[in-house]
Amino acid sequence: MKAVLLTIGDELLAGTTVNTNAAWLGAELTGRGITVVRIEAVGDDPEAICRALRRARAEAEVVIVCGGLGPTHDDRTREALADCLGRPLQLRPELLAQIEAHFRRRGRAMPERNRVQALVPEGFEPIPNPVGTAPGLWLEDEAGIVAVLPGVPHELQTLMREVVLPRLAQRPGRPAILHRMLITTGIGESDLQQRLAGVESLLDEHTRLAYLPGPYGVRLRLTVEAPTAEAARERLAALESFILERIGERFVGFDEETLEVVVGRLLRELGATVAVAESCTGGHLADCITSVSGASTYFRGGVVAYDNAVKVEVLGVDSEVLAREGAVSEIVAIQMAQGVRERLGAQVALSTTGIAGPTGGTPDKPVGTVWIGLADAHSAFARCYYLPDERRRFKQRATAAALDLLRLHLLQQKVTKTASQYG
Amino acid sequence: MKAVLLTIGDELLAGTTVNTNAAWLGAELTGRGITVVRIEAVGDDPEAICRALRRARAEAEVVIVCGGLGPTHDDRTREALADCLGRPLQLRPELLAQIEAHFRRRGRAMPERNRVQALVPEGFEPIPNPVGTAPGLWLEDEAGIVAVLPGVPHELQTLMREVVLPRLAQRPGRPAILHRMLITTGIGESDLQQRLAGVESLLDEHTRLAYLPGPYGVRLRLTVEAPTAEAARERLAALESFILERIGERFVGFDEETLEVVVGRLLRELGATVAVAESCTGGHLADCITSVSGASTYFRGGVVAYDNAVKVEVLGVDSEVLAREGAVSEIVAIQMAQGVRERLGAQVALSTTGIAGPTGGTPDKPVGTVWIGLADAHSAFARCYYLPDERRRFKQRATAAALDLLRLHLLQQKVTKTASQYG
Repeated sequence: MKAVLLTIGDELLAGTTVNTNAAWLGAELTGRGITVVRIEAVGDDPEAICRALRRARAEAEVVIVCGGLGPTHDDRTREALADCLGRPLQLRPELLAQIEAHFRRRGRAMPERNRVQALVPEGFEPIPNPVGTAPGLWLEDEAGIVAVLPGVPHELQTLMREVVLPRLAQRPGRPAILHRMLITTGIGESDLQQRLAGVESLLDEHTRLAYLPGPYGVRLRLTVEAPTAEAARERLAALESFILERIGERFVGFDEETLEVVVGRLLRELGATVAVAESCTGGHLADCITSVSGASTYFRGGVVAYDNAVKVEVLGVDSEVLAREGAVSEIVAIQMAQGVRERLGAQVALSTTGIAGPTGGTPDKPVGTVWIGLADAHSAFARCYYLPDERRRFKQRATAAALDLLRLHLLQQKVTKTASQYG
Repeated sequence: MKAVLLTIGDELLAGTTVNTNAAWLGAELTGRGITVVRIEAVGDDPEAICRALRRARAEAEVVIVCGGLGPTHDDRTREALADCLGRPLQLRPELLAQIEAHFRRRGRAMPERNRVQALVPEGFEPIPNPVGTAPGLWLEDEAGIVAVLPGVPHELQTLMREVVLPRLAQRPGRPAILHRMLITTGIGESDLQQRLAGVESLLDEHTRLAYLPGPYGVRLRLTVEAPTAEAARERLAALESFILERIGERFVGFDEETLEVVVGRLLRELGATVAVAESCTGGHLADCITSVSGASTYFRGGVVAYDNAVKVEVLGVDSEVLAREGAVSEIVAIQMAQGVRERLGAQVALSTTGIAGPTGGTPDKPVGTVWIGLADAHSAFARCYYLPDERRRFKQRATAAALDLLRLHLLQQKVTKTASQYG
């Protein structure tokens, strides 16, 4: 089954909003074996919406339309659908009642403008929206399916999960499509490609491999299409084992098993806790660790020691050493990690100190230089990285390097020591 | 001048990569008065690329093609262009030499696969890539311009800034288009709409207003198109002053003046420093503050007190109070802010303590509850917010609420006190 995504909003064209809805929809549909063949973004312009809708319906059985269902004057999707498909808008009293109830629950009267959200093009079925005011719309006719959803991400996601995806899953005649993401870190795209020399012999039109570089590492996306689910699984397994053998410890995890998720799992397995002392990453490392639900079981906390005085006073870095070696140095990274480990009572600790830029570099320590420290009860060390990049990406890459250092350390602990030593 | 963006990559369709390139391109072009009328994403499939290219050229004078120029077997853009436009690929020795030099600078031999990046369709002009191996491509013919750029964001951005945008800027006959973003926070879309009742009389096809909700607040995008720059400026000024009068202190800043930028500017103006104590935001508040270049002049640092013991031992929260009132309480928020302010030696401090979820809620303190504290030399207080949302958005919304509390506090300081009191 093929799908085209039609995302609507001037803000997408003007670049003031990143089209995360398209990515989310793509992942959800692809994961269910529905092939997204094209994504279009058009403005809040009924004619452009209509042209895109006609193009999409001619190309795919399923068209997902997203955005432009809000209450404001720049939301034109409802009227565009009505005009384009010759299906006049009708006021649905039961929707109006739901929208009024939504506002009542928040102790407010419905603004008059929200009334338009109770309008439905003839023949469309409204999809109730439990988390917002804009109902979705569903049309099934001889040309296929049109599902229309609000552009607010959590409303879109709720309506997709609760109504649209279950309905699509019930439709017959789909080939088996399997996807698998292999997450790597600390190795570039070209080096990966070289390690995987020979993989081409396993690839064809139905067995594909894509390299997806990002600040936290390169992800490898494997896609296999086969007449049966079993054949797809077999082909995927062969490709996967070929790759895993060659990338070794550069492999972090599958699919959603990002660095922070894997590090969290290893910490739980070892019964260990972690703390972080951040300078150049400025809180991003802690933010990343705490993005995992349940992180409170192994994350003690962190200190963002942006000012050097904080490194000395809160983390106990030796002020003479700091003056002599500079904040971006091996010894300061080690002392930061040791300091935060002791003060926050963690078994293991990470530290980051570097030059995020764009200013502050020197010939000796150019922008992008970062020392990452690791301390546990037995030892402490630091490693130097050179990650020249714009500020945000520098923080992300340094965070990935720190998490990877911890990941390798914990993997070694798991192999060579008993858990009790870390418990 | 109209443009269509054609972004290429299976990963965009499968949703494993968010199309940030499209947003970046949209913003850059729009900002220069070039109207992006449509964005398409298609897979690494030469036929789909060709269909999209033909559609785009029929619709707009400028087509920006992005992605699929890498060295790996899933990069098909080069051959698709050659086949589609009937312009056979030719090996350019000077490009090959540049690519080899790129690898030599990194102390490595060029992998054989990168050789394909020296292929150029007949009649295209290569655009040298100073930051990567894939050169861009430029075609100008009777149908308009096709600019082809690598999909790696910083390569794309470098080639656009250095070559493509300057070339487009030189082309004649563009109407004046002005954009202005008004950033608001702490007010919902419907409430904004009500405050702006009557704005419709100022709007028409050439004067537009869009509401762009996000976790940090609603941004209002104003777009004005006029025959002359002066007429556009006048119309924009009228619309802007109408809106600013009505949104009052909910207005944060223009365009790039986000909460963290405005807070940083106010701190610098007052000669004040800030520190943060975070529980539920887990480092995101510090990360946000340090995303601004130059933050080191006013940001002392922070403590991520995820574990309650860290709140007591590092921040000095009273353990009896914590046991009695719970970590998510007014008094603990106040003590966290006071503690981090004293220990890190800042003039003003923020704190966050709440329940991010998805677990940990109680009937009294449901998931989404957050206390935000603020302390300075003279006073300390905390305010309770209810921000039920998924984990990442909760952190973002709580961070916005904290920064907004600080923003209002600093604005008041600026009005009622002399800077010296804060210096």
